[in-house]
Amino acid sequence: MRYALYYWPSIQGRGEFVRLALEDADADYEDAARTNAGMDRMMAMMKGEGVKRPPFAPPFLKAGKLVIAQVANILFYLGPRLKLAPRDENSRMWLNALQLTVTDLVKEVHDTHHPVSTGKYYEDQKPEAKKYAEGFLKDRVPKYLGYFEKIIAKSGGPFVLGRKVTYVDLSLFQVVEGMRYAFPKAMKRIEKKVPGVVGVHDRVALRPGIKKYLASKRRIAFNEDGIFRHYPELDN
Amino acid sequence: MRYALYYWPSIQGRGEFVRLALEDADADYEDAARTNAGMDRMMAMMKGEGVKRPPFAPPFLKAGKLVIAQVANILFYLGPRLKLAPRDENSRMWLNALQLTVTDLVKEVHDTHHPVSTGKYYEDQKPEAKKYAEGFLKDRVPKYLGYFEKIIAKSGGPFVLGRKVTYVDLSLFQVVEGMRYAFPKAMKRIEKKVPGVVGVHDRVALRPGIKKYLASKRRIAFNEDGIFRHYPELDN
Repeated sequence: MRYALYYWPSIQGRGEFVRLALEDADADYEDAARTNAGMDRMMAMMKGEGVKRPPFAPPFLKAGKLVIAQVANILFYLGPRLKLAPRDENSRMWLNALQLTVTDLVKEVHDTHHPVSTGKYYEDQKPEAKKYAEGFLKDRVPKYLGYFEKIIAKSGGPFVLGRKVTYVDLSLFQVVEGMRYAFPKAMKRIEKKVPGVVGVHDRVALRPGIKKYLASKRRIAFNEDGIFRHYPELDN
Repeated sequence: MRYALYYWPSIQGRGEFVRLALEDADADYEDAARTNAGMDRMMAMMKGEGVKRPPFAPPFLKAGKLVIAQVANILFYLGPRLKLAPRDENSRMWLNALQLTVTDLVKEVHDTHHPVSTGKYYEDQKPEAKKYAEGFLKDRVPKYLGYFEKIIAKSGGPFVLGRKVTYVDLSLFQVVEGMRYAFPKAMKRIEKKVPGVVGVHDRVALRPGIKKYLASKRRIAFNEDGIFRHYPELDN
């Protein structure tokens, strides 16, 4: 199956969680919106042109005639197909709950720079962003990553489900990468408490598909248009 | 199958989306945390006592030995079992994408009263809440509900998937109910543009299981500890 991923072409953003799964599995896919024609196609699909079930927002994946939106949903679909999730329902439900917890964390990361309005710039909400980031780094990140730390310990490790890597582990890799980029000072402190999560990150970084991807032009660099943004004034 | 739903006992909150599905289907379930012993059990399960795969937060559903967290995930599981979703994978992926869009909207509803810190009270973030609610009611709600309006039109209506009701329709009912409670002034204006969504609400309200539930003591009243809160100063 040849997949087409539709996502904003100049950021890692939410699309990156899907890219990592496709790249790790060496799947046949195109990052469709990274050409002008693809970008037009993406916008048209969102408007519902020629699509019976148009997505609300990118990322979405085209798999044959099927159009699948929402990161956790896309990964739920791809998981067993890319051998990044077991096929039994119980494990799939569990991985989906974990992935949705990553989704919640990622939304909070976004809100560190956009606490009061998605429609306005960061520059228009800097005081609120400072307040938000404070509680986020002090309470929320340790709570989320502490949870994953517990899950990895319960599974016996080194991954969230035990010995076999899953798409949730790839997402945790991205969370650690992104947090290190956006909040290097805070992460130095936080990482000490979650060696299991850092271990997942390090193991994922060494996987052949991921290594090749990270060294390629396909990996867009972190930047201040994405989800993980480095604003030193927020990093405490 | 007898289900046990674990959720905070004094609010509708996120648990309500699951309650509505169970009630509509007249499923055999207990709202477990509405007894003291149940509340203790819920907290113990979250700590991982006797649970191999502990949830991050309520709501979660116990179905036999399986513990399922995250609203959209619970509904994905229950959907076909309660005859509130078709069994084919394509429709399930589609409904899940829609439900996750409801999840995103509900998170933004929550953030109208907690824009800068989940750990602090609304009273500690009132100016920011006012700013947040403004953009939320002006741009975000029309965008979300306008999307569902389009989906209902595309399906031929009257429900999101066409003629048969699904758990997503029950969730849209709850969104309209909650928005009317929290933002009655703004909703009067917004509803004019989304007659299809209001139609879903009205049809769901008439379903026997829902009618019975809404008239029962099992339905907790909206209040200012929940997700949908009525603060008149935010309703514009």
